[in-house]
Amino acid sequence: MTGSPLLAELIEALRCLPGVGAKSAQRMAFHLLERERERGLKLAGTLEQALQRIGHCQRCRNFSEEPVCAICANAGRDRQVLCVVESPTELAAIEQATGYRGQYFVLLGRLSPLDGLGPEELGLDLLSQRLAEGEVEEMIIATNPTVAGEATAHYLAQLARAAGARPTRLAHGVPPG
Amino acid sequence: MTGSPLLAELIEALRCLPGVGAKSAQRMAFHLLERERERGLKLAGTLEQALQRIGHCQRCRNFSEEPVCAICANAGRDRQVLCVVESPTELAAIEQATGYRGQYFVLLGRLSPLDGLGPEELGLDLLSQRLAEGEVEEMIIATNPTVAGEATAHYLAQLARAAGARPTRLAHGVPPG
Repeated sequence: MTGSPLLAELIEALRCLPGVGAKSAQRMAFHLLERERERGLKLAGTLEQALQRIGHCQRCRNFSEEPVCAICANAGRDRQVLCVVESPTELAAIEQATGYRGQYFVLLGRLSPLDGLGPEELGLDLLSQRLAEGEVEEMIIATNPTVAGEATAHYLAQLARAAGARPTRLAHGVPPG
Repeated sequence: MTGSPLLAELIEALRCLPGVGAKSAQRMAFHLLERERERGLKLAGTLEQALQRIGHCQRCRNFSEEPVCAICANAGRDRQVLCVVESPTELAAIEQATGYRGQYFVLLGRLSPLDGLGPEELGLDLLSQRLAEGEVEEMIIATNPTVAGEATAHYLAQLARAAGARPTRLAHGVPPG
């Protein structure tokens, strides 16, 4: 109870953000109302735009508001190297932490037949098509080191070899010695 | 760089939230896009509504989208006891943690002449008017135990006594023994 039903509604709505519980949500709502109305309104507008307009790139399945994302559209990036990741989060991590200048393919998941995730759901037809174009020489398989991730990596390596591309794997863990 | 300028804009906009840095903002944006589009859109709408419509109660200066807030408008609350707090955050804390059934007055600050906060900025004319109505018998002064808060409390106590109301103070700290 705060005296304002709309404020209570805002606090509840803020809880859709990950890691935000009742207390943080209340702190955020008061902060925006007391000190950041303008930036808060800008956030509301950008959030609406982003959620309505951002879909997936036709070529790599990364997030994009355009049919083809800015990375795929970038002529300066090496089309002979393709890095396959499970999600846009991992793509962003690689972009931020490394100097990788090739292109990407985003699975939006991992092979997991029990969850109904097969080659079709991961867009592997689109990936095969991309490999068949013949430009890709090396496919860096950057799936996670989980059981499902490893199974997916195995499948992807076969796909790459069948198309005449060289599959490589990201190193994981700490080097010995 | 994520391949989507709109996504980058969303990540930047999320940083207006308190305690949200670059990493949390990115995590929030991906989470909303991947799993919570519907609740995210609801958040965008509620945020816009709240920031545009929530102002301050004419009577107590608490946040309210109506001219008079739900607490002031509640006929079931005791009009003989008035609790004076510095901000809506403290009002919410008292509402949540105690069984207080009186009414409130929100200063939206504390006396701080160097910051240009005098009696007028704290709405003390409105508070005097309220006391002059004669209904308030006890004024609970719940300003913070800071130097400015204590100075404000002293000033408020004089105001209450002048209007024939009994000023009381919230207990602070740990009882001895």
